[in-house]
Amino acid sequence: MTLQEKVAQLFGVWVGASGEGGEVAPHQHEMEEEVSLEDLLPQGLGQLTRSFGTAPVDPALGALSLVRTQRRIAATNRFGIPAVAHEECLAGFATWGATAYPVPLTWGATFNPELVRGMAARIGRDMRSVGVHQGLAPVLDVVRDARWGRVEETIGEDPYLVGTVATAYIQGLESAGIVATLKHFAGYSASRTGRNLAPVGMGARERADVMLLPFEMAVRESGARSVMHAYTDTDGVPSAADERLLTGLLRDTWGFTGTVVADYFGIAFLKTLHGVAGTFGEAAGAALAAGVDVELPTVKTFGEPLLKAIADGQVDEALVDRALHRVLTQKAQLGLLDPDWDPVPAALAGAGEDVETLRGTVGLDSAGNREVARQVAEQGVVLLRNDGILPLAARPRIALIGPNADSAMAVLGCYAFPVHVGTQYPEIPVGIDLPTLREVLAAEFPGGEIVTAEGCGVDEAGTGGFAEAVAAAREADVVVLALGDRAGLFGRGTSGEGCDAESLALPGVQQQLLDTLLDTGTPVVVTLLAGRPYALGRAVGEAAAIVQSFFPGEEGTAAIAGVLSGRVNPSGRLPVSIPRRPGVQPSTYLAARLGQATDVSNIDPTPAFGFGHGLSYTTFQWTSLDVESLQAETDGEVRMSFTVRNTGERAGAEVVQVYLHDPVASVVQPVQRLIAYRRLDLAPGEEARVHLSVPTDLASFTGRDGHRVVEPGDLELRLGASSTDLRLTVGCTLTGPVRRLDHTRRMHAAFTVAPRTAD
Amino acid sequence: MTLQEKVAQLFGVWVGASGEGGEVAPHQHEMEEEVSLEDLLPQGLGQLTRSFGTAPVDPALGALSLVRTQRRIAATNRFGIPAVAHEECLAGFATWGATAYPVPLTWGATFNPELVRGMAARIGRDMRSVGVHQGLAPVLDVVRDARWGRVEETIGEDPYLVGTVATAYIQGLESAGIVATLKHFAGYSASRTGRNLAPVGMGARERADVMLLPFEMAVRESGARSVMHAYTDTDGVPSAADERLLTGLLRDTWGFTGTVVADYFGIAFLKTLHGVAGTFGEAAGAALAAGVDVELPTVKTFGEPLLKAIADGQVDEALVDRALHRVLTQKAQLGLLDPDWDPVPAALAGAGEDVETLRGTVGLDSAGNREVARQVAEQGVVLLRNDGILPLAARPRIALIGPNADSAMAVLGCYAFPVHVGTQYPEIPVGIDLPTLREVLAAEFPGGEIVTAEGCGVDEAGTGGFAEAVAAAREADVVVLALGDRAGLFGRGTSGEGCDAESLALPGVQQQLLDTLLDTGTPVVVTLLAGRPYALGRAVGEAAAIVQSFFPGEEGTAAIAGVLSGRVNPSGRLPVSIPRRPGVQPSTYLAARLGQATDVSNIDPTPAFGFGHGLSYTTFQWTSLDVESLQAETDGEVRMSFTVRNTGERAGAEVVQVYLHDPVASVVQPVQRLIAYRRLDLAPGEEARVHLSVPTDLASFTGRDGHRVVEPGDLELRLGASSTDLRLTVGCTLTGPVRRLDHTRRMHAAFTVAPRTAD
Repeated sequence: MTLQEKVAQLFGVWVGASGEGGEVAPHQHEMEEEVSLEDLLPQGLGQLTRSFGTAPVDPALGALSLVRTQRRIAATNRFGIPAVAHEECLAGFATWGATAYPVPLTWGATFNPELVRGMAARIGRDMRSVGVHQGLAPVLDVVRDARWGRVEETIGEDPYLVGTVATAYIQGLESAGIVATLKHFAGYSASRTGRNLAPVGMGARERADVMLLPFEMAVRESGARSVMHAYTDTDGVPSAADERLLTGLLRDTWGFTGTVVADYFGIAFLKTLHGVAGTFGEAAGAALAAGVDVELPTVKTFGEPLLKAIADGQVDEALVDRALHRVLTQKAQLGLLDPDWDPVPAALAGAGEDVETLRGTVGLDSAGNREVARQVAEQGVVLLRNDGILPLAARPRIALIGPNADSAMAVLGCYAFPVHVGTQYPEIPVGIDLPTLREVLAAEFPGGEIVTAEGCGVDEAGTGGFAEAVAAAREADVVVLALGDRAGLFGRGTSGEGCDAESLALPGVQQQLLDTLLDTGTPVVVTLLAGRPYALGRAVGEAAAIVQSFFPGEEGTAAIAGVLSGRVNPSGRLPVSIPRRPGVQPSTYLAARLGQATDVSNIDPTPAFGFGHGLSYTTFQWTSLDVESLQAETDGEVRMSFTVRNTGERAGAEVVQVYLHDPVASVVQPVQRLIAYRRLDLAPGEEARVHLSVPTDLASFTGRDGHRVVEPGDLELRLGASSTDLRLTVGCTLTGPVRRLDHTRRMHAAFTVAPRTAD
Repeated sequence: MTLQEKVAQLFGVWVGASGEGGEVAPHQHEMEEEVSLEDLLPQGLGQLTRSFGTAPVDPALGALSLVRTQRRIAATNRFGIPAVAHEECLAGFATWGATAYPVPLTWGATFNPELVRGMAARIGRDMRSVGVHQGLAPVLDVVRDARWGRVEETIGEDPYLVGTVATAYIQGLESAGIVATLKHFAGYSASRTGRNLAPVGMGARERADVMLLPFEMAVRESGARSVMHAYTDTDGVPSAADERLLTGLLRDTWGFTGTVVADYFGIAFLKTLHGVAGTFGEAAGAALAAGVDVELPTVKTFGEPLLKAIADGQVDEALVDRALHRVLTQKAQLGLLDPDWDPVPAALAGAGEDVETLRGTVGLDSAGNREVARQVAEQGVVLLRNDGILPLAARPRIALIGPNADSAMAVLGCYAFPVHVGTQYPEIPVGIDLPTLREVLAAEFPGGEIVTAEGCGVDEAGTGGFAEAVAAAREADVVVLALGDRAGLFGRGTSGEGCDAESLALPGVQQQLLDTLLDTGTPVVVTLLAGRPYALGRAVGEAAAIVQSFFPGEEGTAAIAGVLSGRVNPSGRLPVSIPRRPGVQPSTYLAARLGQATDVSNIDPTPAFGFGHGLSYTTFQWTSLDVESLQAETDGEVRMSFTVRNTGERAGAEVVQVYLHDPVASVVQPVQRLIAYRRLDLAPGEEARVHLSVPTDLASFTGRDGHRVVEPGDLELRLGASSTDLRLTVGCTLTGPVRRLDHTRRMHAAFTVAPRTAD
């Protein structure tokens, strides 16, 4: 291959599928140079960027368009190599008409990786069915500052929860043949003040123990084949130019062998935003040297600037060869280099190129999808507070109030296609059924009376609607108040990429509306359709109930309605703390003693509802703790068993959460951190004997010298229904030498649940 | 010496001087064990903790009490060694009746190290005059999150400003024979969320380039003889147990040879708050090993727990010997081991022990002190905004409104004795003259009419006083609105140690009062007596003027009044940015491009008034830039000259500020950072030719591999009246190899100001 042919494999071109099934056309974007496929394709092409995700396109026509484009690409370059087609799939395939699943924060709330694995397999199959190879998900960033707009895209504030749920997502996606892309590697969620792309000022230990853990878990356990660098710099080093991170840690230590792709425009940002490169050629060289293999979404630095830098001797061509080898290896794995390669996806093999037949074959929002979307949404609704009003009595008189009471889009995060792209095409139907809360409540409460009032907008200042809302409240048995966010991009919403918050106060005048309704004396059930946790002020103590959901997707309003009616017994658990006060950020449950309430500061960061919290309509009793041994070697394990019993009247799920408390260590430890969890579904009166074996590796942390160690000494394992509702405590002592765990370690506790005995 | 005698030299006992001139008595405090001097003294004693600073005591009697106590200490131990007596001197000798100078944030605002040096020499002489040896100041913490309660104790948010002003303070204190104590080493001001003692999550590079720089400067240039460790942990390692910091960096790299003392109770906190020691003996051993030599304020871990740990073989006695050597070396330097040692301070040598004679000799608030306090206060008042209303016309009708309008304590920070200790003794007079703004305005505006209304409390919720304030405003030509803080300790104030803020909104209902008064239409001159910067909302654009002072000390109200009347031409410059919005913390001017306003986040952290900003009643023109060479070697210097001319009608001071902009570097750089400054006093029409030579070492930063480097490439030197009012720009290119500066470097630009030619 010529040098030009080599580098052509290392970048993508941003395209939109033809709405008529013709070939894709380059997408124009303010940050892109104009590109000409005619000029580029003779050299080959590494990637096709979001032919489905850029503008609304009928998926059948989109599939046809992609097939024809791939044929052209393969036919045009000397080696017949087609492109890798990638798309976004943050919470479902981000294309017109595809299922909008709940956002990752809801996955976290389910504490149910198996469910997430199944969902991701569906997403992957749908993508594969129309010719896509790679999905730019999941997000493994751990929430550090809830003001950040992209909190909705994360799985939560605990690295173990993020790592396990993300691993399940990846396994599901990869099981369908889709290359999963771990992102954003690493540190993005710790942007200072929660401002998108702001520098990260984090120490090496916190980075290793919090931010990198989910990536390590996923790389070692999930089979993910791609990683995307983070936009941010950490302590002055941008991830895209961080060789220690992208090569030293990722490949040399963790053994990753796939491709590293750029976050969109991230290589150019080394020059334009970070100032660590003086030219685009230098930026390209720095990224290649660090270990970035593919420039996305389009060619900006890996074209002429890189060629010139190589010609000038500034960049070693061997770096191109290294990246090329990884890209072609992946294309080979995907079958793209097979002699019998056919651009027609297997799912469409029989459909030919007839549009109507294709339309009958391609379906991205099947009944099966909606069923899974419903399960995830239902299991991810978190009942924060309930004074007994829920489930609501039959035939209630409901005043349904709030900016999200009758909003179809309120269930969607900013990477859902209708938000991410669809809002630019208001003339085109949204493509999927998005019932509003008003619509589903009518169905959920036959015979009930429902009066709806908006009260206020999501983020507008006006209080003109308060009077109508108060009047409605006064006539009702109960107020269902639908508050929260409107997802959007770059300031067009209250949550989402580039929609950061100054504090965790509810947007606009929503807190005022809430307080005004509390003052009416009618019981208020607060429901949140939100992208981040918010301080709820008086509602924490005065609302009749609080139902938290994080953009729960197309079946989300039905899930909330089910919780209100009692059809669904809530089982979600908080993946992020709900703050008591709007101002104390950055702050998560994963804090050392001095990061919590103390005598030496007047500011108390104690959350209103802690990590892992979530109520049920039934009750669970934890009993009969049996600890096998109170001592273990530093390379041993601690084994225990206990019984969880559903002592209530209806079936429900308890989430057994295991927290580690390490009272004395060579470096400061969080007061407690999640090391294991297990969701238990129990019928009324049913009990489960849970056997838990915790490898002492789970007590490891990054020690003073930068190595991961297990230290001897006392530990406390805290078993609870949440981080603030601990039920059983096991003290134990690790003995033996300090143990170093540099290259491999046990990452999971083993649960076995003994056959359940009915009452 | 026996081991017990050795360790006795390594701790203090907290005492209060006798109000009758008898010996000191142990101070009881909830965090202390009860101690018995009878039991302790036969072994000797390292330090006496704050015999003047613990309860109000007549300084003459305090001096006598200390003399008698020292005699007893020396007479009681086998070696005749007296104790080092230390006191707080954050903003003046923290004792009853001593001058309350402005807080350090005001020193920073003067940009006048010479003035601060002189002030510190006075503080030192006063302390020395009554037998004190060591002062626990200055604070070299660099503001990183303005919510922190101790911001008032810092010099500002720029490490070069902090380092230079602190160095001057230390030189002044040490010139009087007082051991200065650099604190808090290191990182304290970056406590997460600005909560006191909360963990610091900072990378090694930011730590080196921001937090450590002032300490390095002071250690290398000031002759400071003591360092106090910080309470906080950084990335999991508490400073008190950080050998790399306290020994590797401080002693081995920087060459410090003095003592390292504990912040009060900080060694015990290794066990009780940080959890890096299981017992007090382990805590003592960890601190000694790290390089802490002296436990303060009292013996908690260095007594029995340490002795037991040594006996058990857990701690090496050699660590005690190492600390002892440093402590005794310092005592020898102080003359405490001289054969003719006399506990009577030289200043009292002739006074004998007659109380009345002593009273005539001891004076801690001399007219000279007040004069210097006045100068610092005047030069530290910052005029943020002026629509032309200032100076006020003669004989104005003033409505003086606000919680700080008639508050004597409003000029004091939390380490001023009347606040720190005096508030516990309400029956005892405050001991110094603290005129309120109301009192000084009457004197400043003879013939004016002044009506006073409180409007609201500093942090109370009540708005009951608004009506009276509005009525007063309606009748006046101008509203002088005195807002700000009330200093206090641990939640008893709105600023000070343990008085952290949730956001940078004005405390209580002050913003409401401000808005209400703006609505009256009467011009509002906002004056701030505050401990931290606050977002001022509408006032930024609507106030007639804004006069910022940071707890300006006993002459502070007169300084503010002088600015209002025009008697004082304001010349202070902001040592911290004044935010536009209350919620975007942590945030300082020292941010990289992505830490500033960007297209990728909706949240704009741009301050209302930037670092270095401050208006004058005259104007300055900057002209005739002459750059000697546009190139320099990486070990060279860049030389330029320019003219600053007072083009207005009255004498005033311009502060020449030199910022470095490094557009491309191997690690991300702040957009600009202060590298030099010089205050110029100019008569009307007078001009100064300023010659500036900038060594390229000032362009150094901590590179990827942890070494300080100067890199070749383009630089921009920005000369301005503030970070946001740049007047002249010098582009230059550094040539030659990357240079490593590991052990020594030039830290200052050279200014020479050519003889001024009158107009």
